[in-house]
Order: sequence, then structure tokens, then C-alpha cells
Amino acid sequence: MSSTWTHGIKLTLFGESHGNGIGMVLDHLPAGMPINLDKLTAFTARRTAKKGDTTSTARTETDQPEFLSGIYQGKTTGTPLAAVIHNHDVKSESYRDIAALARPGHADYTGYLRYQGANDPRGGGHFSGRLTAPLTLAGGICIQILEQVGVQIGAHILSIRDITDRAFPSVSLSTEILKAAGQKDFPVLDDAAGEKMIACINDARLREDSVGGVVECGVTGLPAGIGSPMFDGIENTLSSLLFGIPAVKGVSFGDGFDASAHYGSENNDPFIAENGQIATKTNHAGGILGGISTGMPILLRVAFKPTPSISRTQETINLKTGENTTISVHGRHDPCVVARAVPVVEAAAAIGILGQMVAQCGVHITK
Amino acid sequence: MSSTWTHGIKLTLFGESHGNGIGMVLDHLPAGMPINLDKLTAFTARRTAKKGDTTSTARTETDQPEFLSGIYQGKTTGTPLAAVIHNHDVKSESYRDIAALARPGHADYTGYLRYQGANDPRGGGHFSGRLTAPLTLAGGICIQILEQVGVQIGAHILSIRDITDRAFPSVSLSTEILKAAGQKDFPVLDDAAGEKMIACINDARLREDSVGGVVECGVTGLPAGIGSPMFDGIENTLSSLLFGIPAVKGVSFGDGFDASAHYGSENNDPFIAENGQIATKTNHAGGILGGISTGMPILLRVAFKPTPSISRTQETINLKTGENTTISVHGRHDPCVVARAVPVVEAAAAIGILGQMVAQCGVHITK
Amino acid sequence: MSSTWTHGIKLTLFGESHGNGIGMVLDHLPAGMPINLDKLTAFTARRTAKKGDTTSTARTETDQPEFLSGIYQGKTTGTPLAAVIHNHDVKSESYRDIAALARPGHADYTGYLRYQGANDPRGGGHFSGRLTAPLTLAGGICIQILEQVGVQIGAHILSIRDITDRAFPSVSLSTEILKAAGQKDFPVLDDAAGEKMIACINDARLREDSVGGVVECGVTGLPAGIGSPMFDGIENTLSSLLFGIPAVKGVSFGDGFDASAHYGSENNDPFIAENGQIATKTNHAGGILGGISTGMPILLRVAFKPTPSISRTQETINLKTGENTTISVHGRHDPCVVARAVPVVEAAAAIGILGQMVAQCGVHITK
Amino acid sequence: MSSTWTHGIKLTLFGESHGNGIGMVLDHLPAGMPINLDKLTAFTARRTAKKGDTTSTARTETDQPEFLSGIYQGKTTGTPLAAVIHNHDVKSESYRDIAALARPGHADYTGYLRYQGANDPRGGGHFSGRLTAPLTLAGGICIQILEQVGVQIGAHILSIRDITDRAFPSVSLSTEILKAAGQKDFPVLDDAAGEKMIACINDARLREDSVGGVVECGVTGLPAGIGSPMFDGIENTLSSLLFGIPAVKGVSFGDGFDASAHYGSENNDPFIAENGQIATKTNHAGGILGGISTGMPILLRVAFKPTPSISRTQETINLKTGENTTISVHGRHDPCVVARAVPVVEAAAAIGILGQMVAQCGVHITK
Repeated sequence: MSSTWTHGIKLTLFGESHGNGIGMVLDHLPAGMPINLDKLTAFTARRTAKKGDTTSTARTETDQPEFLSGIYQGKTTGTPLAAVIHNHDVKSESYRDIAALARPGHADYTGYLRYQGANDPRGGGHFSGRLTAPLTLAGGICIQILEQVGVQIGAHILSIRDITDRAFPSVSLSTEILKAAGQKDFPVLDDAAGEKMIACINDARLREDSVGGVVECGVTGLPAGIGSPMFDGIENTLSSLLFGIPAVKGVSFGDGFDASAHYGSENNDPFIAENGQIATKTNHAGGILGGISTGMPILLRVAFKPTPSISRTQETINLKTGENTTISVHGRHDPCVVARAVPVVEAAAAIGILGQMVAQCGVHITK
Repeated sequence: MSSTWTHGIKLTLFGESHGNGIGMVLDHLPAGMPINLDKLTAFTARRTAKKGDTTSTARTETDQPEFLSGIYQGKTTGTPLAAVIHNHDVKSESYRDIAALARPGHADYTGYLRYQGANDPRGGGHFSGRLTAPLTLAGGICIQILEQVGVQIGAHILSIRDITDRAFPSVSLSTEILKAAGQKDFPVLDDAAGEKMIACINDARLREDSVGGVVECGVTGLPAGIGSPMFDGIENTLSSLLFGIPAVKGVSFGDGFDASAHYGSENNDPFIAENGQIATKTNHAGGILGGISTGMPILLRVAFKPTPSISRTQETINLKTGENTTISVHGRHDPCVVARAVPVVEAAAAIGILGQMVAQCGVHITK
Repeated sequence: MSSTWTHGIKLTLFGESHGNGIGMVLDHLPAGMPINLDKLTAFTARRTAKKGDTTSTARTETDQPEFLSGIYQGKTTGTPLAAVIHNHDVKSESYRDIAALARPGHADYTGYLRYQGANDPRGGGHFSGRLTAPLTLAGGICIQILEQVGVQIGAHILSIRDITDRAFPSVSLSTEILKAAGQKDFPVLDDAAGEKMIACINDARLREDSVGGVVECGVTGLPAGIGSPMFDGIENTLSSLLFGIPAVKGVSFGDGFDASAHYGSENNDPFIAENGQIATKTNHAGGILGGISTGMPILLRVAFKPTPSISRTQETINLKTGENTTISVHGRHDPCVVARAVPVVEAAAAIGILGQMVAQCGVHITK
Repeated sequence: MSSTWTHGIKLTLFGESHGNGIGMVLDHLPAGMPINLDKLTAFTARRTAKKGDTTSTARTETDQPEFLSGIYQGKTTGTPLAAVIHNHDVKSESYRDIAALARPGHADYTGYLRYQGANDPRGGGHFSGRLTAPLTLAGGICIQILEQVGVQIGAHILSIRDITDRAFPSVSLSTEILKAAGQKDFPVLDDAAGEKMIACINDARLREDSVGGVVECGVTGLPAGIGSPMFDGIENTLSSLLFGIPAVKGVSFGDGFDASAHYGSENNDPFIAENGQIATKTNHAGGILGGISTGMPILLRVAFKPTPSISRTQETINLKTGENTTISVHGRHDPCVVARAVPVVEAAAAIGILGQMVAQCGVHITK
């Protein structure tokens, strides 16, 4: 059931990169929630490649969704919300001559086996990064609903190769800091680090290569007590979404892999009560204990591998003949997807967090 | 639906640390698969604390499961396989006096909120690490079924704090190497590194502290083409299980977070055809592209935070009164859970991989 | 998760009667299955109101679907198949003046409560019978896939009020008989009975009233051994779909409610082996024992209540004011939905049967 | 995933008739709900065969469940509630000699095919009516939770063969009437009809035959607005459970199949507002419109086929050899399961209704 995700709410994604359209269906959303379409367009535009931006793909997508159902008089109806984005700027030609060649690092080979050669191979088909457009659209809707109940989500590039931005403060994460990077052309907190990252990406592009990076995402305002033990914790739920973003190879929460090198006495977050509010002094746990929110900011990191599409000649095989050959990928592609992935990570996080809240009856309309 | 996991097969876990029993139900297993109970006991014993072992908990659990259904004449029936492990060696006393105190780093506080104070708090209740016993049992059954179709799973401690074992070879991972650590008292590949790790753990114990670490797991023999795009890829499926193991804060596949610092030209694995077999020259992808197996070894890493239960005095709050206080956790607990977690990670991986194969009809009995 | 159904395959329906569009997403279909679009159009046309047909609604819908994804070079890709039917012939005016009035027998009142007044009320919104269009489209695709593996589905009107058609033969149900009614303007086996039914429907229409009826559906060619015990049997699976068709109030299999008046010695179907084939002499079970197919024809009956929309003045309440009032429903509606429901029942049965087969790995492409 | 049912709450059943034990796991129950075990035992005892009762099986089962988890200090914990019923009074001998013979009307043949001969065939294995014991236990817990929020459930035998009890009043269904039959040895409203039914059953038993019947079930106190459109309506949800009870061949709601013979003007239930309360004057809909509760009593009917186990000689085949032969079933079995099925239907209805309420956040503890 590859392309449907369920937890409290249900998200179905469909479409292929060069087919008629891509889109999504969101079911079980809270009813009566106002959706601001201008704000939604501004959010999804952050994922879209910018014209003239040398750090990303040359494919220009307007990606205007057509809403088919689920919004009535500006509010969610509670019944399925469906939207389609028709594919317009499709140039299958540049892909066509390499259709039988498995691009290294891509799903061409595995998709071919999985669907016995019947899948749409053009531009990666259903495996294309283009499917993050409806994912981002769905997440943008969830972000608006979450904001109405006081939950804020933001993300930024934490690193490109070995160049690092400063991390979110784990305890005192204000909405201002959370939203800062998203308002910039290049989504970092420290613009000096951002300059270096841009230089690094451009350098990779010029050398017909690509680079990866890490995105850090934060969620504030989530009440304590949201989540479940075992397989339905916040970590399980979010990682099951985040690994659905192409090129993601690692997901961690709080101090993540670094926590494995700490002592318990360093890593445990002491509880404190202050003015009737319970909090933790530190937040190494990233706001999650036993899969359930502590009321502190949720913090997570997502590792992206370098874009597999590079113009350099690479060794590969021909899917049809099974013979060895070489490939040089000349379609439009990003030397680094990480900047565009920032709103995608926010979107995935929003879907998961809203799902958890709905599952626990934590979201209702306020009349 | 916190404690049921579904993908191809269905696993339900139940029980509380100090209740009558813990157990599991596995549904939709392939029918007619022989299960060797002695071998299963040997596998689950790797998770059990060893008497006199200073690196782990002093609680002695025999953990003999009673099989209630699903095995007939030594083989799986295909209908639900249920097993219960009765709790015997229960000393609630040492926990009782701290029942109202939220142990830092534990789910006491979040569980209390989640269930409005109605959950069983003794020994962590349903959040206890003890629930890994039925998880390991379920995984041990899946491992046996997988072996019958040529799939092997193994794991080892990759690091404790900053002490590292050598990693699995990513291309030429033999069954011998895969299974080597599991046959040792302390599951590492390099025994010299293991000695240092044991010293580190004992040192932490003496200082009333704890340490974390990373487990590396490998899967060989999985045919190419298993998995699905989007939300049902191997990464999504396995991470949704692995984050169900208490103390896990990060999961990565292949080069994981390291991949984010590489160039595409380094990270892409070239395809090669040799004697009619297709493989990749390197395996930075950890055997997964687009969520689907490439036929190369699956490689993943799981980060464990240090055990939150430490004897040192820590600041916390009283759940009932909401007041500030201190706690010193004197129950039986491990200064490091990582060694015992090695078979748990293997178990979780086996459940996910078998689920993926069953979902894709890749496991049948051979008459 | 009201509008998604899952068992082996996954069907998501979306849309509102007077919104931008209605549609469906089918996931986990077998890959590489040819789909004949002309044949599909012919099938879905059976559900569509015929111009000038006095027995059904005056709303003319061409209902041409746009396929967005999932079909490539005439075959299923295996990734989500999405289609949208844009709403064109929408006259909200006739409904507008009664928008606040709960039509008796309709979901206006219950939908209003369920979604706190936020649902789209025009023409019944998501509750409209119009949503059977994408259901029928999805089922038509499943029917084509089933035919490729030898499974045939057909249905007919068994009764309108007290006028009955002859029943399908339960043992020797040929494809010819199965498909006979579907090729007629009025889908019955016995045309003389059909004439009486038409007269009955027209009489009801003239008296500003409506009538209900029963549809009988048969499935042949389904191999024995398909289905599961408990909650995933063929009966559970099909009824969970069939009760999703508006106006359905009862579902039975084999002799159904009649079986409750028989002796065991009459109702049991004796097994016989003949030429290496095992069958039953009679088929009171409707081809299902323990939720699993016996290899005999699957037979089921679906009871439809009379169309709730009638022009007569009825007592009701105003949803906004909560006051008593009267209503006379003057929109376009059928005096009897049963004839148009025949392909809808076939569609629902096809989705359930294909789902069961896919869940059990019984459908593969034949190269 | 045959033996798990999910909608708001999750029920997993396991076990085989002659295996070590049968049982159930209920997940996602509301936390903090008191469970009265004596009352629960009294409820499940209604399903158990009574010693000396000639109308039912001679197998004496005490069926005392052991609760393994999920109840702490007399209340639900909110984490999985598991219980096992060990099988004691097992006489496999009487079944053994017929193990290879497919009992007509039973799942022996279909189960054998489904699980390639690996399923436990003793006493029907997982297909046994004995699995209704954990189903009834689970339902008994749900009934107690429902009662705490004002929802009452009751059922009675509506017919045995052609002998009918009077039906529940569809509008003014009091708790007294609802619960009346459940307090009697033979669960009918009209004891005179009950006498005739008992005579009919005994007559069947003497003639080595069996009879079927219909159970009517009612639910009162369910607020209006519970349920969902399409595939998650109350009808879909309940039928997906009810068809999981062995021998059920038909399920209907409200006037059910009778509604198909009525005019719309007869069948529509007019809405009326009275003292600020909205109700319907009649209740042909059985309390459900568009899958959602109207606030009127929910009414449903379940058709049971006659018990397939009869002592008479019947034609059948040998599963191992595939040859024709005869069978005479001499194990312990009921000439009529309908009386014992009454609490099973109540249980299934309770699970479905509680699931719907939990899915819609309608059940919380009252402190």
C-alpha cells in the first residue's frame, strides 16, 4: 500500500513525474478549519525551483493545485480533501534516451524489478522527487490547522557537506527562530554559513557533481502527553513519513546519534515545576519520552544523501539487455536538494504531528 | 493503536513489566513453516540478562514463553501465533517508593499524562524495556522463517560511547561475519574493542552512571525488488519498528548521516553485471534504493541513548503533587542496554523484512 | 478514515456532489495488467442515467474520467491509479432553498452533526449517490483485471417491491447467464418480470413516490481457498464495501436469511469429487465456508431501501433553527436506484474479490 | 490479517479449539474505565453451554479467562488488555477419526486449502465456534465501558426456523426490554414463542439434525452523529464484525430486506423537534442514515444458518486422498447455536459501537 500513510489522518499520494498529474487525498481532517490558499501557495512555493537560481533544477513548475473536494466556503469539510497538480513543463526527451539505463543511486533498477517493468520510468515515475509537491501541499494544510491550535513548525539546513549552520536552541525555541530560515531565499539561521553552503553547492555543480546535507526541524506548542508507546510513538510516526522523502537516509530525534556517546547523567533531562508548569531543564530527548511528547520542543534531524543525478559518466547496466554500459544524466536536476527539502521536512512533520493529535482527539474547531 | 504493527504480517505486543504476563500475537505468517523451539530459546536467551554479568541488570528472567496457538506439529499454522511469558521475578517494592516520582529520561511523566494516570506505573508498565522480550520472541520466529528462504540477519555493537567496533563489510558480508558477534558473550566483531567497551560500561556502573551506543545490523540474501515506494519502503518499515525499542533515538541506512557529507560521485553505487547477476560495486545505499532492495546487503544503524535509570540523585517532580523533588533510582537496571539490544535489533529487522516479503508474496513453504 | 477501503488493494474515494470533482485512487493493483478504456466506459455507462429514461434521474452526466496516474502504455503500473471526474451538470439552485432542511431518509441531519455543520451540503455532498461513479470506475478496472485471471462477475435485479426476477442458478452459473442482465437496458434475467418492475417504478414516480429492491450478484471462476477466517472472510470484506453504497440496508450470502429457516440436513452442501475436481452438489453456502471460497459460484444479495428523495411533502426540521417544518424534494432524483445500482454492486464485489486475491498473492501478470 | 479487527479500538483474537489456549488483545481502549469482573463473568456465562441443557453442546467449558495485562487496580490502563482462556475439556479423540474428512458446511475443506494443510484441524482449529469465547469476553468489556457513557446493548432470538419472537419496538426501546431476554435461560421476549423454539430444537436434535435462526440486536443511548460515510459507517463496521461469527450468512439494519418492498413514503422517517430534542417519528432506518447514528435506537438482524455438525450420514470427500466417502459427525455440538449466539451478537455490536465512539473521541473517563 505504498503510497498511503495513516495515523489519525490519512494521506494518499498519487502520480508520476511525467504523467497527467500528481496529487493527494487527505482524509479524516478536523472539520471546519479555515484554510488560507494564499498562505498555502506561499508555503509550497518554498519547495519550487526558483528561476535563475543556480543551486537548483532548471525545471520551472508553477505547481498550482486544483482542489477537487474537501474545502467548502474556505473551510475543511471533514470529508476527503483532494487536490491535483497537472504536469505541464514535461520534457521526456532528455530522459528518453536513457530510459533503459539504470541511473546509479536512483530507483530505476529497483522500481523495474518491483513492478516487473510495468512502472512508468519517465523521470523516475512515481519515485520522482516531484511527488514531494503533493506531500508539501498536504503538509501545508496540516501546518495551517496546527497553527490554529497553537502548534508551530519550522526547519532549516543544519549542514551541507561539512559546513554547519547553528542548531535550534533545544529549550528556548521561539516561533521567531523557528520561522526565520523559511523566510529566506536560502533557509539557514546563520547567513554566513549559508554563503559558504551556496558556494559549496555551486562548486559541486560546476564539477558535474552533487552534495547532500542535514535538515533540522522543530515543533513548538505541542502539548505534553501526545503520542503512544511502542510502534505508534512520535518517533515511529514521523520517521515513517520522513523516510518517504526521496534521498533521506537517516532520521534522529533530540541528540540522536550523539546521545549514544553521552553518559546517562548528561543525557537525562531533569524535570522542574515552575508556576504550576512542568518542563525539563535541558532537552536532550528532543521533546519525546516513550514515544510521547514532554511539552518541550520536538527536535529532529534528517540526513539527505547527495543528489544521485550527476552529469559525470558513471558505470551502470541496461535494464532491458542486462549488459554493462555507462550513463551521463543530462536531465534537469539539482546539485543539492537540501534547500528545497526544508519545507518538505516541515510538511512531513506537520502531517505526523497533526495525525497524532487527531488520533488523540486533540484538535477541534473553535467556534 | 500503539502496540500493533502491521506490514504484510501483523505483530501485537501486550503486557506490563510487573503485571501477570507479557506476550505477543503474530498473524498472517506463512503456513507450514517449521519452528525449532530450542533454537528459538537460544536466540531469545541472548537478550536475557546473564547471572553474574556486571554489565547488565541483576533481574533474572527465565522468560520461558508458553505458546498458546499458531504452531501445530512443529510448524506454523498460518493462523495467529500467540505466546505469553508470565512475569515471575517481580520486585515491585524497590519501585514502589518512587512510584509518584517521574524518573528523568523515562516515560513515567509522559505515560501518566497520556493515560490520565490510569496506566500501570510499576517498573515502567507497558513502557518497560521488558516488552522487548516478546518482541525478540516474535523476531526469533521470523528469523527462522527467513532462513528457510535464504535470508540471514545479524548485528553487533558498533560503538559504546566513543569506542568503536569495526563495521560490517558493506559489499562482501558473509553469513559467518554476520553471525559472529551473536555467538559471543559480548557481541562485537573485534574483541579488543569489546574489552574496552566492557571496561567503559563497568566504569559507568561504578560511578552510578550509564552509557549508550550504536548497534549495526545487516541482512543478506534478500532478493532485489522487495519493498515499495513512498511510505512503505524498507527504511520506513524498519524504522517504524526500530523506534519501538526503548532508548532508540536515531536510525540510519547505508552511510546514513555520513552520506550527507559526501559528493554524489562518491556516494552513488555503480551497477555492474557479472555472469548474468546484477550488483553494485559499492554499497553506500545500504542495499536500498527508492525504498526497495537492490539485492546487496541491507545495512542499518540504530542509536541508543544511555540508560535513563541511574542511581545518582537527580532533580525531578512528584506526579501526584506536581512539586519539585529529587530521585535516586535503586531498582535493577543496566548501566548499558546496548549489548542486550543486539538481538532485539535483529528481531525488529527480521519482523520488518519478513513483513515486506509476505506483503510481496515472496515467502512460501517448500514442500 | 471513512472514505478509504483496504484489503489487499486500497481504494480511496473523494469528492462532493456539487464540488469541483469526484474521483478515486486505487493502490497496490497488480502491475502490467492491460486496461481497455472503451470497455471501461461501456461498463460505467450502465450506472449513468439514460436520457429520456423515465425510471431514473433527469441529471445527465457524461462522467468521463481523466486518468491522472497509474496507467502507462495501456497497462497498470502498480503504483497508484488515480482518476478524477469533473462535475459539470451541477444545478445547486434546486437544492439551495432546502439546504437547511433535513431531507427524511437522507444523511443531511447526521452529516450535519458529524461534521459540526462544516460539510458541503449541496446535493448531499460527500454522501451523494454520485460518489458511486468513482466506485463503479474503480470496480470496472478490477473487473477487467479479474477477467484476465478467469474470474467473472455479474448481477441483476432480483426484486422491485414484491416483483421478483428468477434467481441465478447456484451451482451451474454460466458466464452467459451472469452477464445477460448487464447487456440489457433494464437488468433482469426475465424480461416479463422486468416489464412489471418498470411499470411499478413509473407508477411510483407518478405518485411522487419511490421504490426499493434487491440486487443479486454472482462471481464465478474464483479458485477455492481464497479468503480468511474471522474478520477478513469474503463475507466481511464484501459487506464492508457493499454497505458503502448509499441506500443499502441488508447484505446476505448464499441462502442468507432463508438459511435460518432450513434444517442442517437441507442446508449443508455435500462434497463430491469428480475427475479430480472437488465441488459441492448444492450451493446453499453461496460459495463460502469459514470466510473462504469453496470454488463454487459466490452468490450474494443486497437490499436497497426506496430512494429517500420524493416530491411529496414530508415532515422535517430546519437544521439551523431546530424547528419543525415540511419539505418537498424537487431536485433531480430517481424513483428507483436499483437498476442503476446493478453495476455498482458488481463493482463493489469486484473490488473486494480482487483485494482478497491480491492479499493472497493470487493475481500476477502473465507475460 | 484475518484475526485482527480495527476501528477506533483494535481487537485481536487467537487460538485453536484444541490448542493450548484461546484469547484476545484489546488495544486503544479508553483509560481509567472500571471493569467489574463478576459482571463480566455473568455476561460470558450466557454464551457457555449449560450442563444438562439439551438444546446445546455437551462440552462443558468453564472458560475462566486469565487477564494478562491492561487492567490495573480494577480499571483499564489504556495499554493493551490481553486475556487467555486455557483449553481444558478437550476430547480430540472423537474428532481424530474424521480429521481427514471435510465436514459439509464447515471450513475443513476451505481451511485446508487456505493453509496448504498446515492449519490445526482439530475441532475446526481457528475456525471453531469456540473462538466466540474471547470475542464475547472482549465484547463484555466494551459493554461495560459503553454503559458508563449511557449506551445500552441487548439482543434476543427473533426466530428459529419459522417460529418468531416479537420484534424490539423500533422507537420506544427501553433498557428493560433490551435487557429482558438476556436474563432468561432461553433469550426471547415472548416465552410462549420460546417454548415452541425449544421444542423445535429438541425435535431437530432427536432427528440428528439442526436448525438456524435470526438474532435481533438493539443499541440505545448512542448519541446522534456517530459514524462516518462510505466504508466506515456503522453498518460497514458492525457487519465486518458480525460476519466474523461462525454460521452468520446475513446482516441487515432497520427494516433491512423488508425495506426493499416498501414505498419511500412509507420508509422515510420524518424528523420532529420536541423540547429541543430532534428525533424521528418512526425508525425504519434502524437509527442509521449515511452510516451515521440518528440518535434513535440502532436495530440490526443477524441470520444464522443451521449448525453444520449433524450426526446423520452425509456425503463428503477425504482431504488427503481426494476420494468420495461419507461422514457422520459424532463430536459434541449444538443442534442450534442461536441461543448461545445472542450474547455473541451483543458482544460484536458493542465492539463496533465502542470503536466508532472512540474513533470519534466520544468516550472519556469522568473523574
